[in-house]
Amino acid sequence: MENTDRWTETICALATPPGIAGLAVIRVSGTDSLEICNKFFRGTKSVPQFTDHTIHYGWWSEGVRKIDSVTLTVFRKPNSYTGEDVVEIGCHGGVFVTQQIISSLLSTSARHAEPGEFTKRAFLNGKLDFLQVEAVADLIHTQTRVGAQIAARQLAGGFTHRLNEVRDLLLKATSLLEVELDFSEEGYEFVSRSVFIKALDESVDLTSALLSSAQSSEILRSGFACAVVGYPNAGKSSLFNALLNRTRAIVSEIPGTTRDYLEDALVIDGYIVNLYDTAGLRHTEDVIELQGVQLTSSVIEQSNIVLLVNDSSCGFDHSGALQADIASRFPHIPIVCIQNKMDLVEGGLPAARQNDISCSALSARGADPVKVALLEHIRKSRQGFDDALINKRQASLLSETRQHLLSARNALNDGTTADLIAIDVRSAIRCLGEITGETWTPDILDAVFANFCIGK
Amino acid sequence: MENTDRWTETICALATPPGIAGLAVIRVSGTDSLEICNKFFRGTKSVPQFTDHTIHYGWWSEGVRKIDSVTLTVFRKPNSYTGEDVVEIGCHGGVFVTQQIISSLLSTSARHAEPGEFTKRAFLNGKLDFLQVEAVADLIHTQTRVGAQIAARQLAGGFTHRLNEVRDLLLKATSLLEVELDFSEEGYEFVSRSVFIKALDESVDLTSALLSSAQSSEILRSGFACAVVGYPNAGKSSLFNALLNRTRAIVSEIPGTTRDYLEDALVIDGYIVNLYDTAGLRHTEDVIELQGVQLTSSVIEQSNIVLLVNDSSCGFDHSGALQADIASRFPHIPIVCIQNKMDLVEGGLPAARQNDISCSALSARGADPVKVALLEHIRKSRQGFDDALINKRQASLLSETRQHLLSARNALNDGTTADLIAIDVRSAIRCLGEITGETWTPDILDAVFANFCIGK
Repeated sequence: MENTDRWTETICALATPPGIAGLAVIRVSGTDSLEICNKFFRGTKSVPQFTDHTIHYGWWSEGVRKIDSVTLTVFRKPNSYTGEDVVEIGCHGGVFVTQQIISSLLSTSARHAEPGEFTKRAFLNGKLDFLQVEAVADLIHTQTRVGAQIAARQLAGGFTHRLNEVRDLLLKATSLLEVELDFSEEGYEFVSRSVFIKALDESVDLTSALLSSAQSSEILRSGFACAVVGYPNAGKSSLFNALLNRTRAIVSEIPGTTRDYLEDALVIDGYIVNLYDTAGLRHTEDVIELQGVQLTSSVIEQSNIVLLVNDSSCGFDHSGALQADIASRFPHIPIVCIQNKMDLVEGGLPAARQNDISCSALSARGADPVKVALLEHIRKSRQGFDDALINKRQASLLSETRQHLLSARNALNDGTTADLIAIDVRSAIRCLGEITGETWTPDILDAVFANFCIGK
Repeated sequence: MENTDRWTETICALATPPGIAGLAVIRVSGTDSLEICNKFFRGTKSVPQFTDHTIHYGWWSEGVRKIDSVTLTVFRKPNSYTGEDVVEIGCHGGVFVTQQIISSLLSTSARHAEPGEFTKRAFLNGKLDFLQVEAVADLIHTQTRVGAQIAARQLAGGFTHRLNEVRDLLLKATSLLEVELDFSEEGYEFVSRSVFIKALDESVDLTSALLSSAQSSEILRSGFACAVVGYPNAGKSSLFNALLNRTRAIVSEIPGTTRDYLEDALVIDGYIVNLYDTAGLRHTEDVIELQGVQLTSSVIEQSNIVLLVNDSSCGFDHSGALQADIASRFPHIPIVCIQNKMDLVEGGLPAARQNDISCSALSARGADPVKVALLEHIRKSRQGFDDALINKRQASLLSETRQHLLSARNALNDGTTADLIAIDVRSAIRCLGEITGETWTPDILDAVFANFCIGK
């Protein structure tokens, strides 16, 4: 720790959002917090006399001057959020009262908390690991039900548990390997190679699964990006409006009404879908030579899915060339063909087109099948792991872990000696420890808390 | 009460401001609140088992689905904010978690609280009177230290106590008067007229004092309006900038640089001062015929004070005609003459000008004497009563009270019979009761709570 003194100081900050409301909570944490609050609290008991985890009415006063009627709750260490002595002051919301109480506190030995400092202290006192710390941040910032649910599971420790299982497996294998090293001159092979290979393979599988869910974590955080693409007048803007259930894009019969792309969000079953309505792509001899092609291409490039809207009244294969072109240029992005204007077509989709989605964007609920298809794709994109929202820091460490494990695996196949294999496995263990916060440095600590706000 | 059922329903709402933060508090109040929260709380104890005023950790869960780690505190009636059974749920801040918990609650018999409904129930259960309710609103909304202090005193009951003293005095006098009425045919005069007159006079004095502090209450709420006025190039914008301690207005040597008026606020010793920089008033034969005269006039009209800036290097009496003109047109608004550019003048203010303020707006701290003068005027405007922030509702009822009292007083002088006098005094008592909430109707209740927000 860069400056040990800072971590023993008593800190305070507004814990609830700033603004006008009935209630606000100010949190004080550190050795002196009870004594400091006692200077300003006038109630039936003095603050140090409070029983732990009980709430007390009184007035916050500076001398004879009453600032506000408040409630005070005491949480003595280690049974508090930070693991230190904590006092929570409940006061009336609004700018002035909270400022005034904080300024009372700052007039003592207490100082204002840095962003994330309460949670940082909770980590340093062993109340939360890194994954739980990051779950707190996700819980606070997430805007989707599913994201909040996964963050809650991560906070409950599901992710930590999974990683620790892998770590324990590797630690056990390594310790056997190290015994082997000690006796290497005698030519012993304590670790059954097959057991060791199994441990490595299982660990690689899990890190791969976690890494592959990094993208779906990002979808849960930021939303599922969906580009609505097609020839002019296929009904892209109508579909866009129908999905949003309001008139967001101007719709006309004149081809090329949409020039720039429009962006809006909807929520399907707890998932955020970011919808992009693009300019119509012109059908020319070289398939797509188009107005706004660059913009549309950049939208497609950043999408999780392309909804290719086809005017089915012109034929089900009318947009075939366009679909082929997009598929060849963006091979990793799934394309769903939306057969629009089905209300103008006799009969349903032909057998060859059963994977397409039937849609009548201008009819009531005519776009519902598209929503169903989107939800199916979002669910498919959520691979395997449901207990964690993988973030960039974790993904980068998971990727490093996986490389070390694969390197150990290859070394085993190549008949490399145990000491070289042990180095790789130990590196993998260290990476896993950095993910959970089992091992850390001040730099790692700063990285984890970089995006926290004051009062957290 | 319009609909008795509504007041027995269990209600819930976010009590802290919406937004991103470490902590949010959701309040549940009503008969079923403990049972309802128990459906979702997983901890070591069930909610109905909680000891009063103790805080408990656990998970908020819907079935097996964990929503958030929370703390729950139980306040059983009548020892709660509303006087009903209350549960306070402390959860992670942020939009989604709070929405999710509220939606859990709404899936039961609980409904969302109306704006101000928690405080309204506190009133109906006798926990707060109207004056305390209005103090809560002022505490939350006030932006000045002094305003918050007075609101805190009002919440503590200072204002209520003063009004009840008057009410008791009048009640006592009236009851004696009513005994007199019963025996009126026998010609008795139980109430000593002089005692009765004294009671009326004291009551008139107090209501007058309270009414006269209505303006200063408004100053504490919205700020002290101060117009900076003067001939072109007197240094108005320089003074404006110096008071604000930043370059807000463009200053040049070209007369008439300021065209429209500028507005900004500063805080002096806990008071908000709203400063208005106006266009220079032209000096012509008929004293003020000016560009922007209408705007400047409307600014002056709404001000609590006029700072008339004079260029002392042109002579101390240079703006005399302008001062006389403003004084005649706005006789109720005090004018302070600021002798600016004193750094260009030899010696200090002459004896005849000792009431003027010496100022050098362009020198460091050269505008400090103006701040001192402003503070003095603000303090002077705060007449007498320091325990209340009188609002429009209270002022209107105080004015009605005073009229009834004066009418009773006049009737006494005219030798009117006791029964007519008693009608007036009883009306005054009713008005006082409406101020505190001793007597109320649904309409009055609505008026008091009209500006409350949800969760209060």
